[in-house]
Amino acid sequence: MQSQNIQRKVLRTVCPDAKGLIAKITNICYKHELNIVQNNEFVDHRTGRFFMRTELEGIFNDVTLLADLDGALPEGSMRELNSAGRRRIVILVTKEAHCLGDLLMKSAFGGLDVEIAAVIGNHETLRQLTERFDVPFHLVSHEGLTREEHDQKMIETIDQFQPDYVVLAKYMRVLTPAFVQHYPNQVINIHHSFLPAFIGARPYHQAYERGVKIIGATAHYVNDSLDEGPIIMQDVINVDHTYTADDMMRAGRDVEKNVLSRALYRVLAQRVFVYGNRTIIL
Amino acid sequence: MQSQNIQRKVLRTVCPDAKGLIAKITNICYKHELNIVQNNEFVDHRTGRFFMRTELEGIFNDVTLLADLDGALPEGSMRELNSAGRRRIVILVTKEAHCLGDLLMKSAFGGLDVEIAAVIGNHETLRQLTERFDVPFHLVSHEGLTREEHDQKMIETIDQFQPDYVVLAKYMRVLTPAFVQHYPNQVINIHHSFLPAFIGARPYHQAYERGVKIIGATAHYVNDSLDEGPIIMQDVINVDHTYTADDMMRAGRDVEKNVLSRALYRVLAQRVFVYGNRTIIL
Amino acid sequence: MQSQNIQRKVLRTVCPDAKGLIAKITNICYKHELNIVQNNEFVDHRTGRFFMRTELEGIFNDVTLLADLDGALPEGSMRELNSAGRRRIVILVTKEAHCLGDLLMKSAFGGLDVEIAAVIGNHETLRQLTERFDVPFHLVSHEGLTREEHDQKMIETIDQFQPDYVVLAKYMRVLTPAFVQHYPNQVINIHHSFLPAFIGARPYHQAYERGVKIIGATAHYVNDSLDEGPIIMQDVINVDHTYTADDMMRAGRDVEKNVLSRALYRVLAQRVFVYGNRTIIL
Amino acid sequence: MQSQNIQRKVLRTVCPDAKGLIAKITNICYKHELNIVQNNEFVDHRTGRFFMRTELEGIFNDVTLLADLDGALPEGSMRELNSAGRRRIVILVTKEAHCLGDLLMKSAFGGLDVEIAAVIGNHETLRQLTERFDVPFHLVSHEGLTREEHDQKMIETIDQFQPDYVVLAKYMRVLTPAFVQHYPNQVINIHHSFLPAFIGARPYHQAYERGVKIIGATAHYVNDSLDEGPIIMQDVINVDHTYTADDMMRAGRDVEKNVLSRALYRVLAQRVFVYGNRTIIL
Repeated sequence: MQSQNIQRKVLRTVCPDAKGLIAKITNICYKHELNIVQNNEFVDHRTGRFFMRTELEGIFNDVTLLADLDGALPEGSMRELNSAGRRRIVILVTKEAHCLGDLLMKSAFGGLDVEIAAVIGNHETLRQLTERFDVPFHLVSHEGLTREEHDQKMIETIDQFQPDYVVLAKYMRVLTPAFVQHYPNQVINIHHSFLPAFIGARPYHQAYERGVKIIGATAHYVNDSLDEGPIIMQDVINVDHTYTADDMMRAGRDVEKNVLSRALYRVLAQRVFVYGNRTIIL
Repeated sequence: MQSQNIQRKVLRTVCPDAKGLIAKITNICYKHELNIVQNNEFVDHRTGRFFMRTELEGIFNDVTLLADLDGALPEGSMRELNSAGRRRIVILVTKEAHCLGDLLMKSAFGGLDVEIAAVIGNHETLRQLTERFDVPFHLVSHEGLTREEHDQKMIETIDQFQPDYVVLAKYMRVLTPAFVQHYPNQVINIHHSFLPAFIGARPYHQAYERGVKIIGATAHYVNDSLDEGPIIMQDVINVDHTYTADDMMRAGRDVEKNVLSRALYRVLAQRVFVYGNRTIIL
Repeated sequence: MQSQNIQRKVLRTVCPDAKGLIAKITNICYKHELNIVQNNEFVDHRTGRFFMRTELEGIFNDVTLLADLDGALPEGSMRELNSAGRRRIVILVTKEAHCLGDLLMKSAFGGLDVEIAAVIGNHETLRQLTERFDVPFHLVSHEGLTREEHDQKMIETIDQFQPDYVVLAKYMRVLTPAFVQHYPNQVINIHHSFLPAFIGARPYHQAYERGVKIIGATAHYVNDSLDEGPIIMQDVINVDHTYTADDMMRAGRDVEKNVLSRALYRVLAQRVFVYGNRTIIL
Repeated sequence: MQSQNIQRKVLRTVCPDAKGLIAKITNICYKHELNIVQNNEFVDHRTGRFFMRTELEGIFNDVTLLADLDGALPEGSMRELNSAGRRRIVILVTKEAHCLGDLLMKSAFGGLDVEIAAVIGNHETLRQLTERFDVPFHLVSHEGLTREEHDQKMIETIDQFQPDYVVLAKYMRVLTPAFVQHYPNQVINIHHSFLPAFIGARPYHQAYERGVKIIGATAHYVNDSLDEGPIIMQDVINVDHTYTADDMMRAGRDVEKNVLSRALYRVLAQRVFVYGNRTIIL
């Protein structure tokens, strides 16, 4: 039956802006008899860059569709066509449970269309929680290893699972450039401050010392510079003089887990485009 | 010089959803050598309705452009082409100054691309404030008039100024159906609660009595049913047990004026589509 | 060793307002050589009602302390003295996992100073999740029972565990007056709307139909009237025209669980006073 | 008539924490037959510092009241007794109108219990707006002056009006230490970022470059270090990839004026205590 071949895919196009781009791309989809379920585009007028996410439904001939697009798009274009739907992640953790717990809950009971292929910790602390949700846990201890050696072992362990994304759910180690370059625009971190405020260690203590009235969390892609990758999502809560640094940490955990899972929701839906140090979310 | 003829216009299209709509519309724009500065579309899959806002730049031949569109769009389509840029409003007020003051400030110093053609009050209270900003103030007292008579006088006064929109900036009178029908989807109201909570009179007192921990404001189009028109924007603030109804009223004023001006910002940019009792903001 | 007798307790006083109340109460604490760790008070000037929460540290003689207070406070006063620290709850559930999961996580890993004595469901759905956290699960099916019979069985099951509070974590049944009266000011519910908007069933569908731009959740004590008990905490998130009712439901779950656990945090710390249909949070 | 002598005053006490402080202070108030309208206290347990704000009503004998307090409070105590009610400010501006406009509106129409004694600008730009609200405007141009000379002229102009507070409503000049020290804990600034993010010039451009998803504003006391004084209030709004730096600036203006006026509301009510680099708001 033909209806068995009906699929949903996401076409993502990034290219220099030019007159007629939307017409060209949607014409090609139309000729391929693909239905546009949802279309979103954005032009960065400052740099003349065009971004488009097209969610398509129909019977796909990927080769000819991409060839047609390549014939129509200007020099220096990027386009990719992926199946819509469930994505596969590996989660890295240290000792804190709240972000991991939220992702395990949402994977098991709905809220994120994700398969958690494995959880990898540099401590044993979160093995039991992970395994209770029938997800494999791997210990890759950093003890006795250089940072490079440890990251190399991490890469080997992660790559067994062929994840679409690597999620740092309060993984409290700085990553080597080798690790980051191995997963370009695939590593997502949750930082426990509204960046760029309080980069680095112990942000809640920094926030307490500074006497801020708002604390927050930031989900971002990881690039070479610590806590300076492209921001996907941020949120904040109000605090006041009655909050100690520990109170901020406790209240902040809910913000962290919410921001991480909301950012991941958009990444998994292939809505997030990285452009320089910014994200465009379509 | 040809560059003198380059204009910016907004094309708004609403029609039954169909395969190839985006391609057809953007093709026509492309053939007319119009540049798409910004394009946003939305399909309501529940009802199969397609909405598109296209901001175009170039040399326009409105007649042929619209004819081309009419030839391409399905039965039952609505399309309109308006110049981008400044819109003209008339503001109705009673006695409260905060929303009016904010609109006067933004009209004079930036923040809203709007010409306030006139302020019309059913009391004299806000004449001085209005005139200090060099905007004409008209008193249309309701004393001794039926509601129908008063609204008729309001219509006559408003229509002298040919506004694009009529803004109720804390105009504390219920409008007659005749008035509302005279300005279809053109009357914008600010209601001092997060609708549908606390419909009707004295919402802050209702909120106080109910013991809520959040109060808010709602900007909406006015239709026949009181406080039940399509919502454009809402916002809230936290309150606690220390707030009296008067404290809520004072704190709420900032939310009211912000919500009204933020809603108006989108309406003036021709971003808001009314669909049944909902708005789509593109 | 005497230091073993040092305890922390919470004194809660509610009485008609009068001159010198704070002086009288704190004098008595001072004479008992109790240190005031934290003190908060509030006077509702509309009704002349005084509320005070005093967190005390020292060696307590409860009998003489309360007798001294009774001698000093006006007619019609309420005072209670409870140990600070961990409270005991029973959680009622139906089929939705997100609120329960968050409470289980926080009980196990920190964030709420609470012992979950048991989870009681009218369906089997959440047994496995509960038991994975080493908390007993009890099924009290409503099948074949009248509402009164079922609630009676619930009461019997709950009372085995002698909880301080009963938490309805998406328990989707209306409670009988007998049940509510059995646990005065002890039953806390999470409702999936910003009350009083969208009382009753399917609030996200109501919200979708109304076209609101904000959705929310409300934690409240349960009294006889459905969804009309004293509100403890509310929070909201923005939505837009792209949200279906299902999208609202998904996004709303994070708000629901946050609001419930933040409300519970304050209840467990004995910070919440119920006064008529309002709460005072000190 | 004796009732003519009934006054409302605010007693503010800061001292080392000690057992019985609340009892001692409230006892003294009670003996003076003063009614406590509202009382709030806070102990910073990290540093052992006690803060109390007591709003009193009755017939005051300031000298004996303060003497009684001095006899009861520990070494190193600060206490001050001021009449409640309207405070007097001078506003400094440069060219941006939105914060000034909001303060003028609230002074004229309610929302802030404040007398704006004068507005002083280093440009003429805002003279007309100020004078339209019947408030005197003074130009103190910085042209041809050193920073020290200009600040000296500012001090002379300000001091004519004997304000309780000096409010920097987008006054775009760095103040000299001499100026700041002349008005200890009396100068309130609005900074257009959620500090400590984006200290210094052009924060919206910095925010745009960093690709943040949240922008904000901070009201703070001014001390010697630029943008590093004690924070009184902060608020934020969401932005996304469609915002240019100019869009952020426009949207941020509403946050700026709201944060400034909400901070000022608490300062004017004598609710804000400065302690090191933090504020305690009672």
